[in-house]
Amino acid sequence: MEAIVVRRGETSPTVADLPLPDPEPGEALVRTLRVGVDGTDHEVIEGNHGGFPEGEDRLVLGHEAVGVVAEAEGTPFEEGDVVVPTVRRPPAEGANEYFERGEPDMAPPDACRECGIDGAHGFMSEYFTAPAEYLVPLPEDLAEWGFLVEPVSISEKAIEHAAAARSAFDWDPETGLVLGNGSLGLLTLAMLDQRGYDRTYCLGRRDRPDPTVDIIEELGATYVDSRRTPVTQIPDTHEAMDFVYEATGYARHAFECIEALAPNGVGALLGVPEPWEFEIDGGRLHKEFVMNNKALVGSVNSNVSHFEAAVETLGDFPAWFLDDLVTGVHDLDDYEAAFADDETTIKTAVQFSQI
Amino acid sequence: MEAIVVRRGETSPTVADLPLPDPEPGEALVRTLRVGVDGTDHEVIEGNHGGFPEGEDRLVLGHEAVGVVAEAEGTPFEEGDVVVPTVRRPPAEGANEYFERGEPDMAPPDACRECGIDGAHGFMSEYFTAPAEYLVPLPEDLAEWGFLVEPVSISEKAIEHAAAARSAFDWDPETGLVLGNGSLGLLTLAMLDQRGYDRTYCLGRRDRPDPTVDIIEELGATYVDSRRTPVTQIPDTHEAMDFVYEATGYARHAFECIEALAPNGVGALLGVPEPWEFEIDGGRLHKEFVMNNKALVGSVNSNVSHFEAAVETLGDFPAWFLDDLVTGVHDLDDYEAAFADDETTIKTAVQFSQI
Repeated sequence: MEAIVVRRGETSPTVADLPLPDPEPGEALVRTLRVGVDGTDHEVIEGNHGGFPEGEDRLVLGHEAVGVVAEAEGTPFEEGDVVVPTVRRPPAEGANEYFERGEPDMAPPDACRECGIDGAHGFMSEYFTAPAEYLVPLPEDLAEWGFLVEPVSISEKAIEHAAAARSAFDWDPETGLVLGNGSLGLLTLAMLDQRGYDRTYCLGRRDRPDPTVDIIEELGATYVDSRRTPVTQIPDTHEAMDFVYEATGYARHAFECIEALAPNGVGALLGVPEPWEFEIDGGRLHKEFVMNNKALVGSVNSNVSHFEAAVETLGDFPAWFLDDLVTGVHDLDDYEAAFADDETTIKTAVQFSQI
Repeated sequence: MEAIVVRRGETSPTVADLPLPDPEPGEALVRTLRVGVDGTDHEVIEGNHGGFPEGEDRLVLGHEAVGVVAEAEGTPFEEGDVVVPTVRRPPAEGANEYFERGEPDMAPPDACRECGIDGAHGFMSEYFTAPAEYLVPLPEDLAEWGFLVEPVSISEKAIEHAAAARSAFDWDPETGLVLGNGSLGLLTLAMLDQRGYDRTYCLGRRDRPDPTVDIIEELGATYVDSRRTPVTQIPDTHEAMDFVYEATGYARHAFECIEALAPNGVGALLGVPEPWEFEIDGGRLHKEFVMNNKALVGSVNSNVSHFEAAVETLGDFPAWFLDDLVTGVHDLDDYEAAFADDETTIKTAVQFSQI
């Protein structure tokens, strides 16, 4: 079968011919429908994140997949079931406490592998296998958008953890700010809209006309151009934010967002930047954080419960939003187009087969 | 009646003669037993924190009080009841949503006054009045230690908010680090011990022999001398911490504690530093925060529920701990001794009357 891989020493994906995988006990064989491409894939391809499976010189890419069960084997699934795989798998030495209690998303990096990212093959192949416990069912009518379940699940977790951090008091967020107008940022913006935020904002650095700004405004949110309104000035220019979601990976935002938060607000940090030294007014930020009961939560990955919530969320997105967000679904023979990263591209996927 | 006040333009407390206060409807008159002194009092005296009541040139000090109901008026209390007052009161314009729902601790600074600190007189007088809803009953056998309920309540809230921030997953903290060996730090260390932490640590910058180090070790905790082991090196020298409680007001600690946290750990920030610009490796901290699902919560003040929890906590402290922690209880004619701030002083109180 054909697969999209990155080889050691190379910085662009290629197609390789691999043997059809053989399900182990407890695993199903899944025929791949579509696999999304995101910023993490680009970091993996460029060698800035993740790593190859032990002893191998190539990695099958892709962690945002949807497929159809081809061989259920002894699993609770039936052939034809539409499923989405989760991303984390136990490390080589076997399952640990995080996997045993269904919270692999809380495992530290050295206590897990990530399919398509770090130490385990991903889903960009015509077929893949997965243990049944890592497959989440999806209604068939959502199959075409199923590759969005994984990124939505990332925000389900971040929003859940942020709300938990405010659960010791009566917190009713009205204003939300998403830092970053990439596909994850836009998905999260739509989620805040769905969850009843009164006023939402999305920060980017794009000139109009721009398709992401169009989506932001169609969602009823306000576009904030960071070149004109830095994060720290958002409360003065617009208003203070009950919730800030950072999806830029720009390290200054992790600290500047403290100043964008309203009293009792919470920031969720999702970006994974490189080392970068810079100056902050740490005294002022510290005091502001304390005197106004603010909070920050870091969030990575997601577990089955977040995938299940994401399936619900995906089903509630308006059709126009999904149509506008997904700017390209490319067949395997045109896979390179799915890895384009220009200003007309928002979200892409590679299509391996039809339902 | 006599009261301990700070006057505008002065930087040391003095005794003033004030009229006996007259309870308003819903208020009780309380005969003051003892009032504790803490770092905030010193900041208020030095003019670095808080402010005078509107239109006045002096502030009655003290926010850590215990007293006996002298006139219950129409309140649910009876004369002779031992009570502890909470600290926050509505602003001049009247109660707002935070007070209405019993969460004045979540009010931003401009939406509340603080007795003895900011805009409202404190409790360092022979009598004070308070609305019944701001008085928390205390068993009579704890009356002598009742001035510790307020500082313990501060940590009740911080620990509650920190645990809430970890409530979206299975969190079972084993290791706890308190930054700061002042009285609040030591009280918090004893609370972590009470709550079943397996291993606790307390950071200070004192040479042995030192009474705070003796208490730390008597509690079974490990003393960390920050001059030898900076916060960032604690995981290598000792171990990573599931919970860090910052009570130093040293702004670098707010950021360094991210590196002291174990995966999935949470830091509670309590200090209120002055502005201070310094360099951090914001990229590394941001990545560390995200990849290991860490959290930070800022926490200030406390509400009635935290005072009630603090009463329980206080009753469970071992007697030796309270004896060693409280290094001086001084009568009003010796009040200056209660404001001493040397290396043999841990916690002091002014005694206004006997039970």
